[in-house]
Amino acid sequence: MGIEGASLFIGVDLGGTKIASALVDADMRMIDRVRVATRPEEGPSAVIGRMLDTVQDLTLRNGCGVGEVRALGIGCPGPLDPKTGIVLDAPNLMWKDVSLAAPMAEATGRPVYLENDANVAALAENRLGAGRGARNMMYITVSTGIGSGLILGSKLYVGAAGSAGELGHVTMVADGPLCGCGNRGCLESLASGTAIARRARETAVRPGGEGILKAACGDINAIDASLVASAAAAGDAAAAAILRDAFEYLGIAVANVVNLLNLDMVVIGGGVARVGDVLFDTVRRLVKLRSFACLARDVLIVPASLGADAGALGAACYAAERLAREERDAGCDPSICHDLEGPE
Amino acid sequence: MGIEGASLFIGVDLGGTKIASALVDADMRMIDRVRVATRPEEGPSAVIGRMLDTVQDLTLRNGCGVGEVRALGIGCPGPLDPKTGIVLDAPNLMWKDVSLAAPMAEATGRPVYLENDANVAALAENRLGAGRGARNMMYITVSTGIGSGLILGSKLYVGAAGSAGELGHVTMVADGPLCGCGNRGCLESLASGTAIARRARETAVRPGGEGILKAACGDINAIDASLVASAAAAGDAAAAAILRDAFEYLGIAVANVVNLLNLDMVVIGGGVARVGDVLFDTVRRLVKLRSFACLARDVLIVPASLGADAGALGAACYAAERLAREERDAGCDPSICHDLEGPE
Repeated sequence: MGIEGASLFIGVDLGGTKIASALVDADMRMIDRVRVATRPEEGPSAVIGRMLDTVQDLTLRNGCGVGEVRALGIGCPGPLDPKTGIVLDAPNLMWKDVSLAAPMAEATGRPVYLENDANVAALAENRLGAGRGARNMMYITVSTGIGSGLILGSKLYVGAAGSAGELGHVTMVADGPLCGCGNRGCLESLASGTAIARRARETAVRPGGEGILKAACGDINAIDASLVASAAAAGDAAAAAILRDAFEYLGIAVANVVNLLNLDMVVIGGGVARVGDVLFDTVRRLVKLRSFACLARDVLIVPASLGADAGALGAACYAAERLAREERDAGCDPSICHDLEGPE
Repeated sequence: MGIEGASLFIGVDLGGTKIASALVDADMRMIDRVRVATRPEEGPSAVIGRMLDTVQDLTLRNGCGVGEVRALGIGCPGPLDPKTGIVLDAPNLMWKDVSLAAPMAEATGRPVYLENDANVAALAENRLGAGRGARNMMYITVSTGIGSGLILGSKLYVGAAGSAGELGHVTMVADGPLCGCGNRGCLESLASGTAIARRARETAVRPGGEGILKAACGDINAIDASLVASAAAAGDAAAAAILRDAFEYLGIAVANVVNLLNLDMVVIGGGVARVGDVLFDTVRRLVKLRSFACLARDVLIVPASLGADAGALGAACYAAERLAREERDAGCDPSICHDLEGPE
C-alpha cells in the first residue's frame, strides 16, 4: 500500500444514522473510507464500540497499526465541549453529557480531538474543497436542519465557548413558524428540508397543490424536499413557489452574514443544496439585492465539493491542526494552550 | 506637564459635524482633547487643514512637538480602504475617493493609519472601556444610524476588504420600511434614532399620538428620539410602544449575532443608548428569548463607557497597535505585513 512510515490521521464523522470514517495521509489525501450504521438506540458504549471498529477496519485493511495514526478527530452534532471531549446534548444520538474523546483515546492510545460536525465540514471545505484559499468563509449545510461553520482569518472560529455558527437559528420572521429549538421564525423553520416538506404537505391538500400530491402518488407522507424539487423542475408552480420562498429566506440570511462579516466565500452543501441552480441563483440574487454592493462584490457563493466525505475529512484536518498547534505550543502557558481554535 | 520623552499617540475622530482629537500616552491615557466643527461644505482640503490644526493645538499646548508623536490614527465614516488610507464614500462628509492618510502623514511627518469610526470605537471600548477583557465582542452604536465593530479573538475583525460590521443593514423584515441604503427592512430603518423619530411623527398625527404631539409643543418637526424617550418615561403609552418595537428589533439582531458568533460581550453606545434600561432590558430579554440558552448565558450586554471620547481614543489605540504590528513584522513577507487587522 506504500503507507508504511507515513504520517496518518483518522477522521470520524458521527451522525444520528451513520458513522463515516476516513484514513488520510499528512496531506489530507483520502487513503480509505468506511461507513457503518450508528444505531444510537443501543447506547453510547455500543456506538463508541462501532466507532472503534471503523478505526480498526481502516488500519487493518491498509496494513498499518493504530500506533501509526498520529491523531484521531471526531465530528459530532453539538453542543459539545472540545476542551473536555464531552458531547453535551445531541438529540439525534439521544446523548447527554457523554464523554467521547477520553474513551476513544484510551482504546486507541492516540490523541483524540472532538469538534462540532458543521465546524469540521467547514474546515474540510476550506482546506480541501470548494472553499480552498478563502480567508473569511462560511460553510452552510442545508438538509433536514441547517448548520454552519465559520473560517475567519483562515482559522476555524468557534466563539467564546465553542458554539458559534448557529445560522439555522437566527430569527428571520419574528412571529414565524415554531422551530424545534423553541424559538419562532428561525431560518431552519423556513428553509430546511424539513420546512420545505412541511409546507409542501400543507399545500398538497389545498387548491393548487394537486401537482405535489400527484408527484407523491397521493401519499402525503411521501412528500419530502427532494420530491418538491422534482415537482418544481417538472413545472409545478406551487412546488416552485415553496422552493423560492425557502431559498429567499436562506438568501437573506446569507446577505446578513455578508454585511456583518465581509466574507470572501460562502460554501453551501447538504442534501437540499443538491437541487443546484434554483438554490444558488436565488441566494446570489438576494445577496446582490440586500448586501452592500462592495460587500456583495467581494463574496463568491459556491456549492460544497466534498459531499458525504466532508465530515470525516474535516475531522481528520481538525485533528492534524490541533496536534500541530499543541506540538508548537508545548511548554507555553496552559491557559493559552487550551484555547486553540479562536482567531488570535 | 511631565510628558517630555513620553511615547505619545494622537487619535482623530472625523465626523460629519465635528472633529474630535485626543493626545494619549503609551498606555492610552488621555492627556488632552480638542474638538472643532468639521464644516464639510468647505471641501476636503479645508477639513484636512482643520484636522491638522487640532494636532498642532494638542502638541503645542502640551509642550511637545509633533515629532514626539509616534503615530496618528483616524476614525472616519466608511467605506474606506485602511491599506491605502483613502476614504471611498462618506456621504456625511460629501467625500468620494479622498486620500486622507497620505496628506496627514506628509504634513506631520508621522505614520498615519485610517480605519472605520465604528471599528475604532469598538477597539476603544474593548481596550479601555466597558468591553475590557472581552475576547469576542460586538460594539454597537445606535444614534441617527446604527453602526458596529467586531473584536474576535481579541483583535479587530474587519473582513475580506475591511468592511465588516454593517449590523445596521442586516434585513430584519423582508418587506419593511425603505432604508437609506436602498434595501428594505434594515435594522437601521427600524431601530435607529431616525427610525424612532419617523415613527413618532407618523403616530403624533393619529389618534393615540396626542401625548407625543403635546410633548413636542405641537411642533411635529421637534420630535426626535430623545423626545420620544422623555414622553415614554413620563408614561405616554404610544411613545413607549415605539421604543419597545425599535429595541425589540435591536434585540433580535443582537440575538442573531450571538447565535452566529458566540460572543462574550455586546457593548452598546451612541445617543439612543443613553435612554438606558428600557433599551438594555429589552435587548437582554430578546437575547434570552431567541438565542440558544448556552449562548445567551455566555454573553454580557452592557452600556458603552467612553461616551464621546470612544472615537478619538479608539483611533489612537488603532494607530498604536498598527505601529506595533508593523514594527514586529518588519522584514517579513509584505503580502502578510499589509494584512494587519484580521484574526489569524
